[in-house]
Amino acid sequence: MNIENIDVSSYPNSEKIYVAGEMHPIRVAMRRIRQYPTVTIQDGKRVEHPNAPVTVYDTSGPYTDPSFHHDVNAGLPPMRENWVERRGDTERLDEITSEYGRKRLEDKNLDSIRFPRHVAPRVAKEGQRVTQMHYARKGIITAEMEYVAIRENLDNEARGIRSFITPEFVRQEIAEGRAIIPANINHPEAEPMIIGRNFSVKINTNIGNSALSSGIEEEVAKAIWSCYWGGDTLMDLSTGDNIHETREWIVRNCPVPVGTVPIYQALEKVNGRVKDLTWEIYRDTLIEQAEQGVDYFTIHAGALRAHAPLIAKRLTGCVSRGGSIMVEWAVTHDCESFLYTHFDEICEILNKYDVAVSLGDGMRPGSTFDANDEAQFLELDVLGELCQRAWEHDVQVMIEGPGHVPMHKIKENMDRQLEKCHEAPFYTLGPLTTDIAPGYDHITSAIGGAQIAMYGTAMLCYVTPKEHLSLPDLNDVREGVITYKLAAHAADLGKQYPGADVRDNALSKARFEFRWKDQFNLSLDPERARRYYMESRRNAPDADDRFCTMCGPNFCAMRISQDVNEKCQKD
Amino acid sequence: MNIENIDVSSYPNSEKIYVAGEMHPIRVAMRRIRQYPTVTIQDGKRVEHPNAPVTVYDTSGPYTDPSFHHDVNAGLPPMRENWVERRGDTERLDEITSEYGRKRLEDKNLDSIRFPRHVAPRVAKEGQRVTQMHYARKGIITAEMEYVAIRENLDNEARGIRSFITPEFVRQEIAEGRAIIPANINHPEAEPMIIGRNFSVKINTNIGNSALSSGIEEEVAKAIWSCYWGGDTLMDLSTGDNIHETREWIVRNCPVPVGTVPIYQALEKVNGRVKDLTWEIYRDTLIEQAEQGVDYFTIHAGALRAHAPLIAKRLTGCVSRGGSIMVEWAVTHDCESFLYTHFDEICEILNKYDVAVSLGDGMRPGSTFDANDEAQFLELDVLGELCQRAWEHDVQVMIEGPGHVPMHKIKENMDRQLEKCHEAPFYTLGPLTTDIAPGYDHITSAIGGAQIAMYGTAMLCYVTPKEHLSLPDLNDVREGVITYKLAAHAADLGKQYPGADVRDNALSKARFEFRWKDQFNLSLDPERARRYYMESRRNAPDADDRFCTMCGPNFCAMRISQDVNEKCQKD
Repeated sequence: MNIENIDVSSYPNSEKIYVAGEMHPIRVAMRRIRQYPTVTIQDGKRVEHPNAPVTVYDTSGPYTDPSFHHDVNAGLPPMRENWVERRGDTERLDEITSEYGRKRLEDKNLDSIRFPRHVAPRVAKEGQRVTQMHYARKGIITAEMEYVAIRENLDNEARGIRSFITPEFVRQEIAEGRAIIPANINHPEAEPMIIGRNFSVKINTNIGNSALSSGIEEEVAKAIWSCYWGGDTLMDLSTGDNIHETREWIVRNCPVPVGTVPIYQALEKVNGRVKDLTWEIYRDTLIEQAEQGVDYFTIHAGALRAHAPLIAKRLTGCVSRGGSIMVEWAVTHDCESFLYTHFDEICEILNKYDVAVSLGDGMRPGSTFDANDEAQFLELDVLGELCQRAWEHDVQVMIEGPGHVPMHKIKENMDRQLEKCHEAPFYTLGPLTTDIAPGYDHITSAIGGAQIAMYGTAMLCYVTPKEHLSLPDLNDVREGVITYKLAAHAADLGKQYPGADVRDNALSKARFEFRWKDQFNLSLDPERARRYYMESRRNAPDADDRFCTMCGPNFCAMRISQDVNEKCQKD
Repeated sequence: MNIENIDVSSYPNSEKIYVAGEMHPIRVAMRRIRQYPTVTIQDGKRVEHPNAPVTVYDTSGPYTDPSFHHDVNAGLPPMRENWVERRGDTERLDEITSEYGRKRLEDKNLDSIRFPRHVAPRVAKEGQRVTQMHYARKGIITAEMEYVAIRENLDNEARGIRSFITPEFVRQEIAEGRAIIPANINHPEAEPMIIGRNFSVKINTNIGNSALSSGIEEEVAKAIWSCYWGGDTLMDLSTGDNIHETREWIVRNCPVPVGTVPIYQALEKVNGRVKDLTWEIYRDTLIEQAEQGVDYFTIHAGALRAHAPLIAKRLTGCVSRGGSIMVEWAVTHDCESFLYTHFDEICEILNKYDVAVSLGDGMRPGSTFDANDEAQFLELDVLGELCQRAWEHDVQVMIEGPGHVPMHKIKENMDRQLEKCHEAPFYTLGPLTTDIAPGYDHITSAIGGAQIAMYGTAMLCYVTPKEHLSLPDLNDVREGVITYKLAAHAADLGKQYPGADVRDNALSKARFEFRWKDQFNLSLDPERARRYYMESRRNAPDADDRFCTMCGPNFCAMRISQDVNEKCQKD
């Protein structure tokens, strides 16, 4: 396989740095953006005043390390392999446990699309639980916990910024269920990251093929592309052909946690016939995916039979695939959803691999009209109950949230989630704040996402411009990721997260001093910023102008403002 | 002149309708979007259930009326001419009063770029005030007031939606300064619209050339394009060549109120030398533009000499062109800004044409770091004082606001503006909620704009993707306008503005019923929505699928949800 249509090898004027751990032999990757000096003229002489480099959170993985040579057929190095090994509570299996997984492995017809390297999966030893929550509750600070503490702090200490985030704080937050580190022992390629409202806001990218589109190469490219632009986690929502093989390629090449919705694949296994779904097929799918290394599962165990009549009252019914499948199954079989009745067994599978559960909101509103209705809030109560049951099994939990919500109803979602779900991290899709802008739903939803994240949502699921219309291509992934990065960052500023404003202030200083290249390089999308600027400056390719391209050389407020400053200083 | 590169002649499956006034002989333009019927199968037969058309606010002017044939060289019909005439308090001048205006008219070298039709301007008769505020305070409900009352209500009455908006309510809001109708007697081509927090949120589009770019044709095209996509007002911020002639073309062809910042042109008249600016040059510029028909002037009369030392404390100084010019002028001449000292004379000019004043925020923060600082809030106090002075002259007032503001500081801006500026309408630029996303600042600012509008801001000034980098082209104008339309609409939903949710609910119903064409036609940008959809459905050009293109035919939550509904109904 070849991934040739994207370049993820570097960022302009940046270097990859690694910060060493103190408790564990770990190296935490970050990106440091260099800046040009500020130049002034003093007594007729040019004087340079250096500007400190700016260290930023880096989700791009080894791809941007110049010493790393990527071979998509080999995957990424298994960074966490030793950490897991050293804990001594897991063992490597002789072969895949999942029946379906074995069948796929043995099928010679799949050789041409199979990821070439097969590694036997790892599982908890008999009677062990291997989740970060389990360790945290025992008072153990894992390498993963130290990693995220360092990662969240960037170089705050060097910059004199006080932060409350220590490895011990991370441990407490995980022990109490307020944060999670999705880190399947079978996805050692992923760099640990933390999702919780006392940390920086994260964003998730959805990719995946459907019966209508897209092959494996394209999905792997989207995965890497998403990480390059800043995606913190990645959900593979494939529903088309070769889901198992597609996922393997993605997981092995993905430096961020990968999530899935196992019911999608389970349904494919019964050829899309909801009534043919069984607990056994679903259970085998969980094991299959856990052994591949999926870091979190969306499980719609809160969508119950009781929801069916409530759906009928809605303008847009049930717009969650998982939710609609489970309600239809329950109605068809005239019994309760097997995800709900087997939830404890599910948790006992999850804690053997440390797969986190993302409790799906099958009843999320699909229109602003349906927001905050009975169906939605009844399910939220059930999710709160399931959350506590998962915690009894030491399974890490987050709660999924809407959807479509008009602005005046957003805060109630957050307040109620905190209350009913015992402060487990909230993970929302937007919410979209109006229904009337298909083609621009990355924006209608970034408006809601930024707000709900400021109120406490821990992770935002991105929405692309193609939402409601089509599956995203590479351009849409980039547009969606940057849109959500800026929304999440706006929320970090709104939360006054320690050090969040360093990058803003550096960029604004560069802007005021007409250091154009620094302005581009410090931005979320340096390539686009530079391109837009250059389009208006075709004759001055060096970007060294001492004026703003919007107003022209004779009419720049910032230049006049600098002149005023100089005059005031002389007075 | 030819405007050939844009098509603004119609919207898909829509018709232009006119609602007649009851008090005045007026016809209020609206757009009615037709819908396809909902189709069900009952007893094996196809049954059609009609869906009511949706009436939407329409800023596109006569361009979308099929009976109108546009000649850019003739301009639009002067709809309000008779309304103004009938009031009997104005007279037509024999010639232009402004010295500069006369000079331009007499310059034969300008013939080739001059708008071909010259109409002598109109002015208040001696001793008269002709502002909407003046009439409102006298208890008179003008045609303009009845027009906006009908326009804001759409077909709420027919839909059974109760609204508090009556012509008398409009009159009261204007009399008390809480709303304005920018409507220069010399811009009879404009359709009246109202700006106030008890009405729907409006958006303004900035266009205009600079020394670096763009000719007259392009600016006129941008103006018409902006109205087509939904811009409620238009500011011509030109600073390059031929400002006078460019403006004339724009005003004569513009169906929405036009605003300017007269200091820009005044500065061009002294070749960009701030120290050479005088009250006399500025005064002549006000008259020149008032006689052309500009509907509101941004005047930075609150930027005072006392601000100079405060600017020096900032990260990004003063980023307002008008503000920086006036502070530099005051510092250079060691005296107070002439806009402040001559403010009463300015108001006496404005009330003779009914030019509204938009009190400029010369001290708006240019970075999130500078938000809500001393310079900004000191100026806001001055703007409150100037607002009351303008009201003494019956001049309609709005107050301009920031800028760059992190989310946790947005509400303070609104609350303080209401308090200090006596509830005059607030008109903000975004605000941008983070500085780190040049190239995406339409989005960073839509996030802040939607919030501040929900809190009470009456009009949002759009920001395009090119902000900070370059001047917008036609594509950027469209992207900026739609982005701000959706933000303003999200705020209307958040405010629970009467009838605001009708379009959302219709679109969502169409979405749930797989009426794809209706979904496109009801959206803010039907062309884009349709194009994105079609890209994924190359083989099915009719958009009649009963499934969503994101999940494919076998996997659609909405289809499953409909099936569940049917099952429940059978039970």
